[in-house]
Amino acid sequence: MIKIAIDAMGGDFAPREQIDGALKALAEISDIEITLYGDPEKIKPYIKDEKRIRIVASDGVIDMGEKDPIKAIRSNRKSSMAMALSSVRKEENDAVVSSGATQALIAGAHILVGRMKTMKRTAIAPVLPTASKKHFILLDSGGNLEIKPEYMVQQAYFASIYAKEILGVEKPKVGLINIGTEEGKGRQLDTDAYTLFQENKHIDFVGNVEPKEILDPPCDVMISDGFTANIVMKTIEGTAKGMSSIMKEELMRGILGKLGVILLLKNLKCFKKRLAPEEIGGAMIYGLKGVVIKAQGSSQADGFYNAIKQAAHVVRQDVIGKVSAIIESEANQDG
Amino acid sequence: MIKIAIDAMGGDFAPREQIDGALKALAEISDIEITLYGDPEKIKPYIKDEKRIRIVASDGVIDMGEKDPIKAIRSNRKSSMAMALSSVRKEENDAVVSSGATQALIAGAHILVGRMKTMKRTAIAPVLPTASKKHFILLDSGGNLEIKPEYMVQQAYFASIYAKEILGVEKPKVGLINIGTEEGKGRQLDTDAYTLFQENKHIDFVGNVEPKEILDPPCDVMISDGFTANIVMKTIEGTAKGMSSIMKEELMRGILGKLGVILLLKNLKCFKKRLAPEEIGGAMIYGLKGVVIKAQGSSQADGFYNAIKQAAHVVRQDVIGKVSAIIESEANQDG
Repeated sequence: MIKIAIDAMGGDFAPREQIDGALKALAEISDIEITLYGDPEKIKPYIKDEKRIRIVASDGVIDMGEKDPIKAIRSNRKSSMAMALSSVRKEENDAVVSSGATQALIAGAHILVGRMKTMKRTAIAPVLPTASKKHFILLDSGGNLEIKPEYMVQQAYFASIYAKEILGVEKPKVGLINIGTEEGKGRQLDTDAYTLFQENKHIDFVGNVEPKEILDPPCDVMISDGFTANIVMKTIEGTAKGMSSIMKEELMRGILGKLGVILLLKNLKCFKKRLAPEEIGGAMIYGLKGVVIKAQGSSQADGFYNAIKQAAHVVRQDVIGKVSAIIESEANQDG
Repeated sequence: MIKIAIDAMGGDFAPREQIDGALKALAEISDIEITLYGDPEKIKPYIKDEKRIRIVASDGVIDMGEKDPIKAIRSNRKSSMAMALSSVRKEENDAVVSSGATQALIAGAHILVGRMKTMKRTAIAPVLPTASKKHFILLDSGGNLEIKPEYMVQQAYFASIYAKEILGVEKPKVGLINIGTEEGKGRQLDTDAYTLFQENKHIDFVGNVEPKEILDPPCDVMISDGFTANIVMKTIEGTAKGMSSIMKEELMRGILGKLGVILLLKNLKCFKKRLAPEEIGGAMIYGLKGVVIKAQGSSQADGFYNAIKQAAHVVRQDVIGKVSAIIESEANQDG
């Protein structure tokens, strides 16, 4: 059985949507057991007589707007997020899924789950939709604002294995996010990373990729430092939001417009769904001793279910073990 | 009369669209004179007996894919771009408009037009549409990959004056592109720039702005280093392209879909137009002794006309003179 810890109190619609997502996961996935960390009084009303699920009482929630995430975790060890994370360290669970505050989850995962010995930096890696119905992994979306190129190489190993084992890509390709495609473009970091990627035999490197291909990239992994990739992620979000708002305004103009939109309601819904990140699951935090998945803060039951399904799959495929094996074999070769 | 130099040979559809744009500008704007730099054999067929326009023969074009833009300019002094730029240095013209290669235009402007003494770095500043039918200036979209915060302050002066004089914003607001809104977010550069902006009395600073507000920003100028802002610009482009492609695919599904799309054809066209950058004009290169406007490489006549109109307006409002006055007054206060 794969044991999954759920931070039942984290997220905009917690605990309701988190619990409904967990119940759906139990119904759909036969090899998992779930532990909900949260306030039993608030959780119990949603649970009937389901098997393979239990509640562990926690005390308090990490606030979404927390300014000092490390302090928030340290001073709230009984919070649902902290207890769920600690349960992985204690090997009571194999994975954690949380819709709680991202920075607190990253900080908490460092402190309470711990970093893989071989990986020097953690990273947070959302999976985003492309125009061609595939997906790509965006690295590092906010873990390390500034980073050494050799740590980017480790993150690329992780993403490549993730893409193979979880997204089912036979030979995952990695692209460096840059302002131009030619070699030599970008800052010192970018040219240094380019060289390391190109020389590395574990990485199938396609070179620099401009974000004007961001929803149709020639690769499965798009990588940059944590500042840049976070800016890319938020710009995608902002552009999608702005375009949707302009579209709504323009399409509804006039009688023909309103009629046209009515005819298109179903198709517009599919369009919206194609762009929704929670269709894919959550963002995995790479570089930890255990599996930690950050689901969208605004997750509803289906989105949260997808994140649980993803967590179980990462455990099942032993992604972390496979990454460790590569990094260790490399360290031995170097030494 | 405002004298405008046109690089007639630069751009995907040159010289045809450049000439048609110039002719429209002559018809619509009474206080301009135009000089077309290009191959007279290719230009003459499109010109009848218009007044206030003349052709100066050039030799060669700067290739759009030029890898070494500085070399390209230095070894093609007779090219249409180089001759148009030089004409501003010689005070034969007040402004240049070109759809040619961006990096070559920036390099050429440095060499052939020259930098304002008071401004330490040039910057390229496209004006982008927002969801609320306003515009914002994006700085620096590729001029300086790495930059000192004090140079960002100068660029913000320029953009503020541009927003006031050209976009008609009474009190332009400036926001720093960052991964979070709280003070202290981001890299060293970002926190340093934050402090300088906040202390500066010439800048109406709204603080950090996340790109998830990129098409509805709480400010008229969004600023970062040239690498980050270029990544933002290209991510907007890529997301818009990807979303349009997904939208096309999803909306056209089924009979109802096709019918709905037919009813919406006019509205979809307006939607597309709202997002088109060439509706606003081109990107001005800040920090030069003369007015240099980069029109989209793919500009057609209307887009190129908008860039000419913009160039004339920048000359008319003496934007460069007003920027110099602020920077000089500040230098005097410091000294």
